[in-house]
Amino acid sequence: MNSFGRIFRLSIFGESHGSSAGVCIDGCPAGLALDLNDFTPDLQRRQGGLQKGTTPRKESDVPQFLSGIFNGRTTGAPITIVFENANTRSSDYEQIKNIPRPGHADMVAQQKFGGFADYRGGGHFSGRLTVGLVAAGVIAKKIISSISIEARLVEIGGEPDLESGLQKAIDAKDSVGGLIECKVKGLPAGLGSPFFDSVESLISHAVFSIPAIKGIEFGAGFAAARMFGSEHNDAIIDGSGHTKTNHGGGVVGGLTNGNEFYFKVVVKPTSSTPKEQESWNTETGQVEKFSVKGRHDLCIALRVPPVLEAVTAIVLADLMLLDQKIPLVFK
Amino acid sequence: MNSFGRIFRLSIFGESHGSSAGVCIDGCPAGLALDLNDFTPDLQRRQGGLQKGTTPRKESDVPQFLSGIFNGRTTGAPITIVFENANTRSSDYEQIKNIPRPGHADMVAQQKFGGFADYRGGGHFSGRLTVGLVAAGVIAKKIISSISIEARLVEIGGEPDLESGLQKAIDAKDSVGGLIECKVKGLPAGLGSPFFDSVESLISHAVFSIPAIKGIEFGAGFAAARMFGSEHNDAIIDGSGHTKTNHGGGVVGGLTNGNEFYFKVVVKPTSSTPKEQESWNTETGQVEKFSVKGRHDLCIALRVPPVLEAVTAIVLADLMLLDQKIPLVFK
Amino acid sequence: MNSFGRIFRLSIFGESHGSSAGVCIDGCPAGLALDLNDFTPDLQRRQGGLQKGTTPRKESDVPQFLSGIFNGRTTGAPITIVFENANTRSSDYEQIKNIPRPGHADMVAQQKFGGFADYRGGGHFSGRLTVGLVAAGVIAKKIISSISIEARLVEIGGEPDLESGLQKAIDAKDSVGGLIECKVKGLPAGLGSPFFDSVESLISHAVFSIPAIKGIEFGAGFAAARMFGSEHNDAIIDGSGHTKTNHGGGVVGGLTNGNEFYFKVVVKPTSSTPKEQESWNTETGQVEKFSVKGRHDLCIALRVPPVLEAVTAIVLADLMLLDQKIPLVFK
Amino acid sequence: MNSFGRIFRLSIFGESHGSSAGVCIDGCPAGLALDLNDFTPDLQRRQGGLQKGTTPRKESDVPQFLSGIFNGRTTGAPITIVFENANTRSSDYEQIKNIPRPGHADMVAQQKFGGFADYRGGGHFSGRLTVGLVAAGVIAKKIISSISIEARLVEIGGEPDLESGLQKAIDAKDSVGGLIECKVKGLPAGLGSPFFDSVESLISHAVFSIPAIKGIEFGAGFAAARMFGSEHNDAIIDGSGHTKTNHGGGVVGGLTNGNEFYFKVVVKPTSSTPKEQESWNTETGQVEKFSVKGRHDLCIALRVPPVLEAVTAIVLADLMLLDQKIPLVFK
Repeated sequence: MNSFGRIFRLSIFGESHGSSAGVCIDGCPAGLALDLNDFTPDLQRRQGGLQKGTTPRKESDVPQFLSGIFNGRTTGAPITIVFENANTRSSDYEQIKNIPRPGHADMVAQQKFGGFADYRGGGHFSGRLTVGLVAAGVIAKKIISSISIEARLVEIGGEPDLESGLQKAIDAKDSVGGLIECKVKGLPAGLGSPFFDSVESLISHAVFSIPAIKGIEFGAGFAAARMFGSEHNDAIIDGSGHTKTNHGGGVVGGLTNGNEFYFKVVVKPTSSTPKEQESWNTETGQVEKFSVKGRHDLCIALRVPPVLEAVTAIVLADLMLLDQKIPLVFK
Repeated sequence: MNSFGRIFRLSIFGESHGSSAGVCIDGCPAGLALDLNDFTPDLQRRQGGLQKGTTPRKESDVPQFLSGIFNGRTTGAPITIVFENANTRSSDYEQIKNIPRPGHADMVAQQKFGGFADYRGGGHFSGRLTVGLVAAGVIAKKIISSISIEARLVEIGGEPDLESGLQKAIDAKDSVGGLIECKVKGLPAGLGSPFFDSVESLISHAVFSIPAIKGIEFGAGFAAARMFGSEHNDAIIDGSGHTKTNHGGGVVGGLTNGNEFYFKVVVKPTSSTPKEQESWNTETGQVEKFSVKGRHDLCIALRVPPVLEAVTAIVLADLMLLDQKIPLVFK
Repeated sequence: MNSFGRIFRLSIFGESHGSSAGVCIDGCPAGLALDLNDFTPDLQRRQGGLQKGTTPRKESDVPQFLSGIFNGRTTGAPITIVFENANTRSSDYEQIKNIPRPGHADMVAQQKFGGFADYRGGGHFSGRLTVGLVAAGVIAKKIISSISIEARLVEIGGEPDLESGLQKAIDAKDSVGGLIECKVKGLPAGLGSPFFDSVESLISHAVFSIPAIKGIEFGAGFAAARMFGSEHNDAIIDGSGHTKTNHGGGVVGGLTNGNEFYFKVVVKPTSSTPKEQESWNTETGQVEKFSVKGRHDLCIALRVPPVLEAVTAIVLADLMLLDQKIPLVFK
Repeated sequence: MNSFGRIFRLSIFGESHGSSAGVCIDGCPAGLALDLNDFTPDLQRRQGGLQKGTTPRKESDVPQFLSGIFNGRTTGAPITIVFENANTRSSDYEQIKNIPRPGHADMVAQQKFGGFADYRGGGHFSGRLTVGLVAAGVIAKKIISSISIEARLVEIGGEPDLESGLQKAIDAKDSVGGLIECKVKGLPAGLGSPFFDSVESLISHAVFSIPAIKGIEFGAGFAAARMFGSEHNDAIIDGSGHTKTNHGGGVVGGLTNGNEFYFKVVVKPTSSTPKEQESWNTETGQVEKFSVKGRHDLCIALRVPPVLEAVTAIVLADLMLLDQKIPLVFK
């Protein structure tokens, strides 16, 4: 289903080359001041066309508020935000009809929906949809404004120096992936629940909605497999639960423990590589070589940090509301 | 919340040292033959006391069916299964009241529930609860009996040789973690949806309910961060969507693609290490050295494979029902 | 929450005098042919301005499809439909700010949302929102096209002759209510479940979302209180469950039984009566006489039948999908 | 599905003649004192065997707490309560296998579940299941202890004198129905939401889970169909929203308005009438006369008031938690 959350709840909709992409947000507290300018920074960070390695397709990405905002404040009713798709070149995608792109959902989408899926630019499966996530994330961040959330790219194509990782892709005329770390400060202890809504469960559920994410680890993560218990355990050093180390990443037993909450995700290399590839041609009934058209990112990971922050904020806003840490009306 | 699933839906309950642990399962198709013996193999794999490195606490783990089964078949009504806790030694846990164990939920549970949480053996946060997951998993496996699910420990304490990994822990008088791989064969293409219920989202949501899991990766996972797009992409080689390689792990765009579905998880070292540790004593108001009592596993990862299979089966049974791949009545 | 349904699931949004009202529909099968003309008949039946006793406010009510439709068919992705509000005269509503209208949500909306609710024309609480329900109902009816759903006004202002009931209101310069009966033919047996999703539970849940509904009865309904069991019971007369009488209204034990499903609802008289009324003036702090401005229906019940059919179709489409009576792809 | 509620959430299970009936309750605040004695009064009111006109089947109805309670208080973890079925005479029900009882779910249950439903005493469709509702209701009432909920039978068999209504049934050797009114005092304004979770929507959803209920009306209810708007409207007389009259029954726009909340339901006559009836014999393939065996209530409405109070309390506790009117920990 295209919805997520229990109190602060999103429904996402749209297509890459349809008329628009957007989000409907239910359960936002009333009285929250919202302004177009609130959305600009994160929308720009997400946007292609501004930095080396990202797509030259550039949408203006101005949010249109269809409902739920009155006199500059949220009303308590559902907030619907729409982004028009203007800068589409659907003709680039006619070949997808016959040659499903490897690494993309082209083929499985048609298998699932009996051939009726909108194939242009990946349709509903496109990264274009993340614009709605970012918009919802801006609102979520304002709801939990005392909490800081920061995601940053820590590695591109295996290089901690991002510039050289990107150069590697440019030199190889290929696409690359990356690693992103997200750090959250200021969370209270006790958010989440052990079965089935652990903080890790909810964060990973939301995170794997972001296209191209293929792995997540909390705290020490995979490194924990090679540690002794006495090393990995975080000794509690005061009455509010602060710990000496933080291998658990701020979560224990599925609940936040009041220490810094952090996790890392891997972003696979952009599926739309400039390199020639092979795929099945459904019309000719044989494997053929082809090149993907369209305007693409060499390293989609460059654009993921604001999306990762957004889904993190969305999950945490919901948990803060569930635990009554946030009022239903902002004065 | 303590529930999970949309059609095939579980509610889990119980405590480590309360009267019982159990599960209530809604949405199971009618007519499925169920017998006590169906449960024995996975319950025994999960159980401590049988192999080196696991807890000497041994429960008989005989499922009691309270509802939903009549004449050896499911009726279509909710199935409640209870496991009595007999072999409890709560006195081992009196010290938890004052000294919260590092790596455990002792402190956060009391913070969340205002001091009213059942602290004995971790209460509701205990691994004991996974007995209900395994029972539900047995039913889920029978629902999707044409699909094979196999989880196995591939590394203990950093060693691919499990015996030597365990010996490392015994020698160090410490606990160790491990890596588990889960492989699923026979899935149709098209299960899942991109926002927000991708297969990766749902599997990870369920998986992070298993205590001690700290990371998950699908297909090539974290290694994808160092691959080029042309390497990572899986070329489609026939009209049903089979691919030449399988770096995506059988999922693309959030949907299964009909290839083998596989993922890997990391299990942290058992928090209850035999080593002396430090923690905050809430009574004395200072950090103190202490040793955890109780009967524990040196390597809890040894007992996780059947639990991992169970939650995987639970997610997949739900997705198969949602996609109408499974009838609501078995004849 | 502003969402409803399990497989076929709606989220509704909008305000009476905001930019628009609309609906986001998830879980609609793919391949369903949808055309603007499909929506016209029910939207017109719902619309004011065409018949005696309804509001002179007339919106063009042309649905805009923002997503989920491609080449004239549903794609399987969420369908968002928006109706622009053009014909608004918000100045009529300035007095609501100070004098909450009796029978309307004006006061409770501000109490709930801390004074931030959009008060113009009732904001999110307005009957304007039912335009989205009707649009979703059109789709639901097409999904279950073999089932006929018909709601008709059977009484206005206590008169079975609708003309004279309306005249009563015109003569009295007051508003009146009415009774509506809804009949559904062609349902299979077995839809619904006893706890908690009986057919009566789900239908009434949806029905009480329609503004002004204050009661519902299934089959013989309230008359059953004065019947003997031997009278009320519907004798089963064949192997498919047809009954001699139908006092149960086609539902028994919470499940449809394959007989005609019917129920009746009461619509209260339009709260915006032309008569002078009393209410509390929040500015002056005293009870005052006032007259509601704005353009209103003398008998809102006249416009409810298509809305009642819509929510009925929505519930039944969801139940038919849940019971796998409808495929996920229409060919 | 067999679950209900968003924060305070029930899952119900069990059968009339299986081993037990019970309920699993999630989302109950921690620290609530709970004692066996808390359950006795409402369980006794619900129980048969004590008053004229009710079944001679008498269960001891002692709740067994399987989880979620420790040292006499709720822990914040799920609470599972089980009632054993001891006093069953399943042999009474062997005939149901072939002759489905009119007014009961016997036939539709087998149609839905392919012949695998537990037919003994109605199986999962039995009124026996309401014992779990009453238990959950006891807890809900304690959560919202400042609110009074009172349901009472106001009419039996069409007679406001309950004694004479019952005598009518005894004389006619038939069963009768009744009307029950429920009044709630002390609710704050603003509970509920207009689409789709109006207070009327949620209450009716829960109420129609109680077997034998066939209609519900809020406030003036069906009488509103014959009133003018100026009569029905409740004039607001002070700044907290008190009204001069209360035809709306304490709900306006789907939200509570702080006045007394009241509604009425109709209970159909007990389907198991002592009178001889006709039904289809699935074995002989023809309509036959028969008499229901088993021990039954002449007027099941006599036992419904505590169940009606219970589901009302369950809905209201959930709404109070959703609106943060109740803390998550009771000190």
